[in-house]
Amino acid sequence: MKKTFGKVSLLLICCFVSVGLFGATTTENHPALVINHQDVEQMRIAVKQNDAFKQAYFMQKARVDQMLQTTEALLVPQPLDGGGGASHEQHKRNYQLMYDAAVLYQISQQQQYAVFVADMLKKYADLYPTLDFHPKKKKNSGGKLFWQSLNEAVWLLYSIQAYDLVFDAISDDDKNLIEQNVFRPMADFLSNQSPKEFNKIHNHGTWSTAAVGMTGYVLNEPIMVEQALLGLDLSGTGGFLRQLDELFSPQGYYSEGPYYQRYAVLPFITFAKAIEQNEPQRKIFNYRSGVIVKAIEVAVDLTYQGRFFPINDAIKEKGINTAELVQGVAIAYSINQNPALLDIAIKQNSPLLTGDGLRVQQAIAQNLAQPFIFTHKVFGDGMDGKKGALVVMRNPNQSSNSTEQALVFKATTQGMGHGHFDKLHWQFYDQGAEIISDYGSARFVNVEAKQGGGYLKVNQSLAKQTVAHNTLVVDETSHFNGNRRVAERHHPKLQFFAANDEMAISRASINSAYEDVSFNRTLVMLAEDTQRQQSVVIDLVDITAAKPHQYDLPIHYQGQFIDSNAPMQTATAALVPLGEQNGYQHLWLTAKATLDDKNALSRVTWLNDNGHFYSHYSVPVQGEQRLFTRLGAHDPLMDLRPESAFIQRVTNKQNHQFINVLVRHGQYNPTDETTQGADAQLIDINTGVDNQVRWVSLHYQNGLQQLVAFNQTAQSATANQKFSYLNQSYSFVGQMAIFMSKAN
Amino acid sequence: MKKTFGKVSLLLICCFVSVGLFGATTTENHPALVINHQDVEQMRIAVKQNDAFKQAYFMQKARVDQMLQTTEALLVPQPLDGGGGASHEQHKRNYQLMYDAAVLYQISQQQQYAVFVADMLKKYADLYPTLDFHPKKKKNSGGKLFWQSLNEAVWLLYSIQAYDLVFDAISDDDKNLIEQNVFRPMADFLSNQSPKEFNKIHNHGTWSTAAVGMTGYVLNEPIMVEQALLGLDLSGTGGFLRQLDELFSPQGYYSEGPYYQRYAVLPFITFAKAIEQNEPQRKIFNYRSGVIVKAIEVAVDLTYQGRFFPINDAIKEKGINTAELVQGVAIAYSINQNPALLDIAIKQNSPLLTGDGLRVQQAIAQNLAQPFIFTHKVFGDGMDGKKGALVVMRNPNQSSNSTEQALVFKATTQGMGHGHFDKLHWQFYDQGAEIISDYGSARFVNVEAKQGGGYLKVNQSLAKQTVAHNTLVVDETSHFNGNRRVAERHHPKLQFFAANDEMAISRASINSAYEDVSFNRTLVMLAEDTQRQQSVVIDLVDITAAKPHQYDLPIHYQGQFIDSNAPMQTATAALVPLGEQNGYQHLWLTAKATLDDKNALSRVTWLNDNGHFYSHYSVPVQGEQRLFTRLGAHDPLMDLRPESAFIQRVTNKQNHQFINVLVRHGQYNPTDETTQGADAQLIDINTGVDNQVRWVSLHYQNGLQQLVAFNQTAQSATANQKFSYLNQSYSFVGQMAIFMSKAN
Repeated sequence: MKKTFGKVSLLLICCFVSVGLFGATTTENHPALVINHQDVEQMRIAVKQNDAFKQAYFMQKARVDQMLQTTEALLVPQPLDGGGGASHEQHKRNYQLMYDAAVLYQISQQQQYAVFVADMLKKYADLYPTLDFHPKKKKNSGGKLFWQSLNEAVWLLYSIQAYDLVFDAISDDDKNLIEQNVFRPMADFLSNQSPKEFNKIHNHGTWSTAAVGMTGYVLNEPIMVEQALLGLDLSGTGGFLRQLDELFSPQGYYSEGPYYQRYAVLPFITFAKAIEQNEPQRKIFNYRSGVIVKAIEVAVDLTYQGRFFPINDAIKEKGINTAELVQGVAIAYSINQNPALLDIAIKQNSPLLTGDGLRVQQAIAQNLAQPFIFTHKVFGDGMDGKKGALVVMRNPNQSSNSTEQALVFKATTQGMGHGHFDKLHWQFYDQGAEIISDYGSARFVNVEAKQGGGYLKVNQSLAKQTVAHNTLVVDETSHFNGNRRVAERHHPKLQFFAANDEMAISRASINSAYEDVSFNRTLVMLAEDTQRQQSVVIDLVDITAAKPHQYDLPIHYQGQFIDSNAPMQTATAALVPLGEQNGYQHLWLTAKATLDDKNALSRVTWLNDNGHFYSHYSVPVQGEQRLFTRLGAHDPLMDLRPESAFIQRVTNKQNHQFINVLVRHGQYNPTDETTQGADAQLIDINTGVDNQVRWVSLHYQNGLQQLVAFNQTAQSATANQKFSYLNQSYSFVGQMAIFMSKAN
Repeated sequence: MKKTFGKVSLLLICCFVSVGLFGATTTENHPALVINHQDVEQMRIAVKQNDAFKQAYFMQKARVDQMLQTTEALLVPQPLDGGGGASHEQHKRNYQLMYDAAVLYQISQQQQYAVFVADMLKKYADLYPTLDFHPKKKKNSGGKLFWQSLNEAVWLLYSIQAYDLVFDAISDDDKNLIEQNVFRPMADFLSNQSPKEFNKIHNHGTWSTAAVGMTGYVLNEPIMVEQALLGLDLSGTGGFLRQLDELFSPQGYYSEGPYYQRYAVLPFITFAKAIEQNEPQRKIFNYRSGVIVKAIEVAVDLTYQGRFFPINDAIKEKGINTAELVQGVAIAYSINQNPALLDIAIKQNSPLLTGDGLRVQQAIAQNLAQPFIFTHKVFGDGMDGKKGALVVMRNPNQSSNSTEQALVFKATTQGMGHGHFDKLHWQFYDQGAEIISDYGSARFVNVEAKQGGGYLKVNQSLAKQTVAHNTLVVDETSHFNGNRRVAERHHPKLQFFAANDEMAISRASINSAYEDVSFNRTLVMLAEDTQRQQSVVIDLVDITAAKPHQYDLPIHYQGQFIDSNAPMQTATAALVPLGEQNGYQHLWLTAKATLDDKNALSRVTWLNDNGHFYSHYSVPVQGEQRLFTRLGAHDPLMDLRPESAFIQRVTNKQNHQFINVLVRHGQYNPTDETTQGADAQLIDINTGVDNQVRWVSLHYQNGLQQLVAFNQTAQSATANQKFSYLNQSYSFVGQMAIFMSKAN
C-alpha cells in the first residue's frame, strides 16, 4: 500500500516536472510557506484591532528593534563551539532574529527589517562556502555551521522562511548570491551529502526533509520537494511521508515519547503547512486520517500541569509553553478548529505572529475556547498502534486546570536511541506534583560546562537503565541486557485497559525483557475519594521464570522520607553503592531492612512538597528486603540530582508476586502549622484468584473495606464475571468492579 | 526608669481596686477584647456591602456550618498525644472553631453559633477539672490539655475571646460553670501554678500573660490583668510590659528572629488591643515609641517573596500569610493607617472578620494601598538596640513585587534557646530564590512520626551548629563551643553599615566566639547591573588569632553543581563523614580539592532553579582545600534534607583573610533550550589597604574593572578618604565608593 503510493506519487511528480505544471510549487508569490498573502493582510489589520495580537506584535517589535541596535546584531561568527557555546548560541539567535525581523517586515512594511535579513544572509553567503565540517562535529552527524547537522537543518528551516518573507525586498543579485552560497549548498549538504541522516526515519531526518522541502518551494526546485517527501532516491523508502507513516502510531503517539514528540512535530507541522499552501491537492493534513494534527493534540495530552511526562530522554521542565507547541497548536487549530486547543493557547500565553496565530487570538477574543479535558487514554505505539501502548489514567471529568491524579503506565516500544530500558514502568502525579517519578534525562541542554550541553555519561549509565525506573529488575541487569538493538525488536503487550467512574485498570506483559523471565503488571487507579481526601493506586506485578532469580522493584519517590514500619538499619557512618553496574553503581545504599512475614504489611511513608503524605504498602515475604537509596555514587563530575528511592528485593525466587498499594493521606500545612491524617490508615491487603477473576481487598483502620475485582484474561468487557471472596459470591459485568463496605 | 514605672502602675492599680474604679476593666459590655461593639455594628453592615469582607464572611460561615454538622464538631477528647497527634489537633481545632463560630454569632446574630460555643465550653468544664498533667507533658513546661503549657495558653487566648463574643447568649448558670471549671483554673494554672513560665521573658511567657490578662478583663478580675502586665508578684520584673521592654529592640526586632517574631507578636498585639479597648489611658500602643506596631512591620520587613528569613530555629515555609501576621497587620493598620500595610494585606489575601480586618478591607476598596517598599535596613538587636544587629541589604527602590536581591547579615545576639551558633553568618536571595541558604530548623511541625512533631535531634546536632551556616568555624568547633549560656553573654559588634545607589556595605566583628580568635566580616552588595544581568557580592573575612588554627568557611548553596576549576577528587566509591562532631558528623564528604596559588582564582559554579548561574570565586592560598559536602551522615531516622555545601579550609594558620566574590551570570532556559552566559567572567580579584582604606578590585573577562573602596574604621561617613591603587590616587567622601572602568 505504501510502496504503491510512493510509486504513484513519483510518477505524478515526474509528469508534473516534465510538462512544467509545477504551478503550486512555483512560488511567484512570496511568502507562501507557513505565512501567506492573505495571512499578511489579516495581520496588518489585526495589529490595529486584536489586543493580544497587537501586544505580541509590539513586544516583538520592541525586542527586535533593541536587538538590531546592538553590536551583536550582525554577528556571524566562525563556528567554534558545541551546544551552549558562544558561536553556537549566536547562530541560533541569528536564525530566530532573521525570522522575527522578516515577520515584522511583512506586518509593518518597514524596509529596515528586510534589509537586516538580507545583510545577515549575505554575511552567511560570505561564510558558508568557506566552511568544512565543524571543528567539534558530532560523530556521524556533523554539521558545518553547527556541531551537528540537526542544528543546521533547524537553521535552514527558519532562515528559508525568513528569506521567503523578505523575498520581494531583495535585489536579484543578492538573491542569487544568497541562494548560490547558502541555501542551495546547505540544502545539498543536508540531503545529497548526508544521505543517511536525510533518509533516516527519525526526528533528525524530519528536520532535514522539512528544511530541504521548504527550500525547494522557495527556490522553485521541485526535485528538492520530491526528495524531501520521498527520500533521496524518490523511492518512498525514506523521506517525509515515510517518516509520517512510521514515526507516529495511528493515534498520533511518537515512539520517542512526548519530549521528542514536541520537538518532532514542529518540522512535521511546519512543512505540512507549507505543502498545504503550495500543493493543497496533496491533502497532507488528511494523510493517515489526519495524523499530524493528532500528534499535536497527543503532545498536549501527554502533560501534567503543562509539563510533559518525562519518559525516555526528556528535560523535565519542557511543556506546552515551548515554541514548538505554540506553533503546533496554532496550525492545528487552523486546520480543525478544535475549541479545546484555544484553552491550551490561553495557557501558552504566547500569541504567535502568523496567520494561524491570529486565527487563534481572534477565536479566543470571541470566547470560543472550551476546556481541554484530560481523560483516561490509551496511546497505541508503533506504526500499527499495536506495539504496546502508553496508558494514561486520569480522574474522570478532569478539567485542564485540575491538579488531580495522573498515572502513566509505560508499556511502549523502546523508542529508538532516546528510549529507556523501562518496560512496564509507571509514574504517578497527584495534587499538582510528581509523586512516583522518572529521572528524565541526565543533561543540561546547552550548558557547555556539562559535557558540551549534550547527554551526560550518566544518562547512559544511570538514566536509561532499568533500575532508574519504577519497574522490575532481574538479577541487577537492565531489560534486554541494556542492548538497544535487541530492545527495538521487542515490545510489551497491552492486555487490557478499562475505566469507569470508580476506577481505571490496565494490564500489560512482556516476556522478552529477560531470557527466561516473563512478567506482567496490573495498575489500578481508584477514583479519588474526596470526602476522605484519599487516593489509592494498586500495583500488582506477577513474575514467572524458568529458574530462580533476584527480583528488584524500585520506587523512585519525590518528597521527604517520614518513616517506615520496617526494621531499618541506616548507613550512618559510611555509604557504599548498592551494586557495580547497570545503574546500581550510582545508588548509595542509605538504609536497608529485612522483613519477615510477621509484618502483615510493610509501609514506607513520605511527605511530598504538595503537603500530602504518601504511604506505599506491600505484602512482604519472609526475607524480603527494603533497600533505601540516594543517587550520587560513581558520579565524578557531580552531575546527578540526589534523588531518593526504595527497592523491594526478593532473592532466589522463581515465580513471585509483588502486591503493592499506594495511598495518599493527610495534609501538612507548615503555614498554619496544622497536620491531619499523617498516620497511614491501611491495615490489610489480601488478594486471590477465583474463576479467572483476581480480587484485591483493602482494609482500612476506620473500618472501610474496598474489594477490587477484575477478569485477568484479555478484554472481556461484556461477560458476566463471578467469584467468591470470604465464602460470599460476587458478580460483575465487564472487565472489573469495586465493592465497598463500611464496617463501622 | 522601668522599675519606677512598675511601681507607679502598681500603686495606681491598687488604688483603682480599692475604690472600685475599675471601670475600664469591668466589661459590662461584651465583647470588648479584640472586637468591640462598634466593630460588630460595622461588620453587620459590611457583610452586605464590602465584597471582600462579605466573601470572607460567607466562606467562614460555610466552613463552620459544615464543621458543625460533622460528628467531630463537639469532640472534646481525653488529652493523649503530643504535637500532631489526634487529641492534640482536635483541641487546637476546637479553640479555632469556637472562636470562628463566636465571630459568626456576633455578625449573624444566629443563636446556634453561641449555643455551639457554650456546649463545647461546657464539655471542657466537664473535662478540665479531671485533668492532671498531660501524659506526654514536656519537661518543665507541661500542660494539662496539651503536652506543653504554651499550647494551653494559646487555647485560652482564643477561647476567652470566643467566650467574650458569646457572653451575652449564655445563661448565668452556664457562665458560672464554665468560668469556675475552665477559665479560672486554667488562668490559675498558667499563672500562679506555673510561675517560671509565666514570668519568663520569652514568647512562651507572652502567650501566658496575654491569655491570663484577657481572661482578667472578661472575668472582671483586675488582679489577673495586673499580674499579666507586671508579673505574678506585681513587681514589674516579669509580665507583659517587661516582655515588651526586653524582647524587642527599639527598632522592633525580636531576638529569636523573624520566625518566632511572627509567633511572638500575636499575643503582644492581641493583648495590647484588648488593653487599648479596656484601658485606653495606658496608651499601650505608644509604649516604647510604638514598639508593638514596629514589631509587626519589622516582621514584614524580614521576608523575601513573602517568606521569613529562616535564621535560628525556623520553618522555612512560614511567611506573611500566616494567621499571626494577618491579625497583626490588621491591628497595626488600625493603629497607624500605614498604607503600605494594605499592600501586605492584599498579598495575604485573607480578609479578617474583625473590626480591624474590616477597616483594612474598606481601605483597600478605597484604593488606599501603597507599595510596601523593601529597602536596606539595620535592625539593632537587644533592649538598647546595640547588641549587634541584623543587617538586610536590598536593591534600592525595590518594590514589594520585586524578585531582586536580598542579603541578610546576621550579627545578632544568640536569640535565646532557639538561637543558632552562627555569628556573622549570611544568606543571599536573588531572582526569586534562595542562593546562599540557611537550613532553618530540623523539624516537621506536628508530624507525630517525626519525633512527635517537635524539634528533631538533628536540630541540635546539625541545624544549630556553626558548620550548618555560612560563617567561620575554627578547629571544627562551634561558636562559644556550642554553649548557649556562654553565647547569651556575648554578641557581635556592628562596625558600620552604609548604602548608596551603587552599593551597600556592612562590617561586623566578634572576638568572643572562640577563645583566642577574633574575626570580622565585610559584606558588599553591588547594585544589580541590569544591562549585564549580573549581581555581585563581595565577602571579606579577616581573622586574627594568638595561635595557629584550622579555619573553615562553608557556603551552603541552593542549586545543581555545574563545575569548578579546582582539581576535584570526587568520592565515587564510598562516602564518609567529614568529621565527628559539632555538625561535621552529618556532612558526607563528596569531593575535595587541594589548591595551590597557581590558581589565580578558585571558582565553584552552580545553577539555581531560578535559571541563573552563580559562581563563587576566592583567592586561595597554597594548600587551601575545597571540601564538597552533602547532608545525611549519622542520620538514623533519615530526617535531613540532602543539601549541598562546599567549605573553604585552611589549616595551621594564625591570621588569615578569606577573599570571596559571588557573581550571578547567565541564564538557563530549559523551555526554550537557550543558555546564555554560562561561562563565568571574573578573572581577577585584588585587594589591599592604604591609609585605612581597604580596596578590592574585580577584573572581568570583558574588560570591565570595578574598584570598591571603603574606610575600615567605624562610621566615617563625612570624611574625605584618600588611597592609591596601581600608583593612581583616588578619593571619596564617606564610608565607601565604587570606581568603574571599561578597558575595551
